[in-house]
Amino acid sequence: MAIFPFDIHATEDRARSGTLKTPRGDIATPAFMPVGTAATVKGVYMDQVRQTGADIILGNTYHLMLRPGSERIANLGGLHKFGGWSGPILTDSGGFQVWSLSKLRKMSEEGVEFRSHIDGSKHMLSPERSMEIQAEHLGADICMQFDECTPFPATPDQARASMELSLRWGERSLAAFGNRPDQTLFAIVQGSTYEDLRAESAKLSIALGGFGGYAIGGLAVGEGHETMCQVLDVTTPHLPTDRPRYLMGVGKPIDIVEAVYRGVDMFDCVIPTRSGRHGQVWTDVGAYNIKRAEFAENDSPLDASIDCPASRDYSKAYLHHLIRSKEMLGQMILSWHNIAYFEDLMARIRAAIEAGTYSDFVAGFRTAWDQNQAGETG
Amino acid sequence: MAIFPFDIHATEDRARSGTLKTPRGDIATPAFMPVGTAATVKGVYMDQVRQTGADIILGNTYHLMLRPGSERIANLGGLHKFGGWSGPILTDSGGFQVWSLSKLRKMSEEGVEFRSHIDGSKHMLSPERSMEIQAEHLGADICMQFDECTPFPATPDQARASMELSLRWGERSLAAFGNRPDQTLFAIVQGSTYEDLRAESAKLSIALGGFGGYAIGGLAVGEGHETMCQVLDVTTPHLPTDRPRYLMGVGKPIDIVEAVYRGVDMFDCVIPTRSGRHGQVWTDVGAYNIKRAEFAENDSPLDASIDCPASRDYSKAYLHHLIRSKEMLGQMILSWHNIAYFEDLMARIRAAIEAGTYSDFVAGFRTAWDQNQAGETG
Repeated sequence: MAIFPFDIHATEDRARSGTLKTPRGDIATPAFMPVGTAATVKGVYMDQVRQTGADIILGNTYHLMLRPGSERIANLGGLHKFGGWSGPILTDSGGFQVWSLSKLRKMSEEGVEFRSHIDGSKHMLSPERSMEIQAEHLGADICMQFDECTPFPATPDQARASMELSLRWGERSLAAFGNRPDQTLFAIVQGSTYEDLRAESAKLSIALGGFGGYAIGGLAVGEGHETMCQVLDVTTPHLPTDRPRYLMGVGKPIDIVEAVYRGVDMFDCVIPTRSGRHGQVWTDVGAYNIKRAEFAENDSPLDASIDCPASRDYSKAYLHHLIRSKEMLGQMILSWHNIAYFEDLMARIRAAIEAGTYSDFVAGFRTAWDQNQAGETG
Repeated sequence: MAIFPFDIHATEDRARSGTLKTPRGDIATPAFMPVGTAATVKGVYMDQVRQTGADIILGNTYHLMLRPGSERIANLGGLHKFGGWSGPILTDSGGFQVWSLSKLRKMSEEGVEFRSHIDGSKHMLSPERSMEIQAEHLGADICMQFDECTPFPATPDQARASMELSLRWGERSLAAFGNRPDQTLFAIVQGSTYEDLRAESAKLSIALGGFGGYAIGGLAVGEGHETMCQVLDVTTPHLPTDRPRYLMGVGKPIDIVEAVYRGVDMFDCVIPTRSGRHGQVWTDVGAYNIKRAEFAENDSPLDASIDCPASRDYSKAYLHHLIRSKEMLGQMILSWHNIAYFEDLMARIRAAIEAGTYSDFVAGFRTAWDQNQAGETG
């Protein structure tokens, strides 16, 4: 299979900036991937997503296999054509959503049987089926091995058993993925909060050979910011320096800033669009709700420093009105702005690493964030 | 007050094509005005609305006076700035929505007291208050006189009393509107289904002097297509030929085609966006629902002949998936397409009038429409 070239332009301590080169285009790292759950980044046109500077989006195997069905997407020419995104796409393995959304799961060494949360229909995911869906039907550029997302908290025994299952599934994923010149497969490192298990998971995943990148799984599942940082502290040192590292499902701006500081290159999260639909506006010091009375006659834009119409061309008063009136356009503009904010943050992170000032960036970001959280009224 | 220049380029029987010239831009007529209820055309960006060829949009006085409040919009620089639409805006008088949406109405010669459907707060509309909101606070380019929308059906006595009240309110509207060099005021002709009352309403409205155009009120209230055509047959002959005629709240494509045939120049309707939110796609022979199973793998666009990304760049299969999945983007694209369809229809209507082929256009349109309705399965 393909190992996409990954050029590292600059490092500062463990932080790195680089370019992951895919046949569908370059990805500047550290990268934030907007989530296109059901072949749409909710409420945002694909050309608007592109305009924010996003190089790659994520698609959800679980959602797409249930609706409209991965075979149907294959018949229609694959996920890029179906959803109108010509750049690279990463798909998850489906495992996480099976555990969080589906009903009546039946686990075995083979894989997992489950019922759709939409219509109760019966489905199965296994390493082989996940590879068929991701690589063959959807045509993702970056596919994820099938894994079990270890629940949090887990005892050492539970964490080990789950980690070893993911390793066996990783090996089967590699075999099923086969030789694909234009697509790559990422491993997922598990091991919960245990340093020895994380190290072992990393070492054995690397030993399998052939993975184009390494994801850190089992985080963003309720463990909290401090624990996340601690797990990263003891995990990234065990990953190859020359391959991209992807922290799945993360996160808030402070999580991203701290994870980059610990050597992570790729992120995805539904936060920008989900919180945008609820009136939340993201900034470097957290999110605030535009519905607050104080914005009713505020004529200033969300953030004039961000080169995006959503951030620049609408007054807070107008957005306040739209969200209070439950107007779709308010959700659309805030979702778009939040993606633009996250992409702008990544651009500033990359610039700081390249300028050798990332330690200062992190320190300043952390201080401002903590001060604002302390004074946060909700 | 201003009487905007209205150049008629071509006529064919009673149909006319022309240009209504306003300080904020020209309006090609016959014109369809997308409805921007609460300072937003639901689910569509203003630059997308503009791209469809719409020269003018409509704003709802009732909705805007309740939320965010017309004084607030005035403080924020008026409706054009607030909502981000630099072209002409027509506002309705608020009367229709008071009757259809508000609670606890108390009618008098003075005006109408009512409670907000949003929060129960008490408000009042009168000719003077409606003019203050439309002309002064919102800054509409075309304002509508305050009127009573005569209920349908109405006895001759009810229709006469209502029509005479609207005339007295029209006179007060003119006085309150005053001398505004860049804004104009339209009269509203009432009289229900009675030819003598329509003629009298038109004659006395004209006699008041100073109206920049004439609307036909009391239609699109459940009377049906045939009755609407009959009322137009006996109303437009009583209106000045050199002033624009506006049929409020209409309508389906067949209604518009037949009304233009009877001499109407301007239309507004929520149909494109409302039906778009429910998965309906408008065409020359009616609307169909994209959710129908037959579209699940249909790779063709909605209408490649319409020069709009919504009509041209998305497959029916993708839109089918989005609407079935209740994804906002599906509602956004269908709302946009439907507006583009209506604006494209208006462009074809104008071209046919200018080519002298509008009678043929109407005959062909009517036949195709009726055939499809006969075979319509819903």
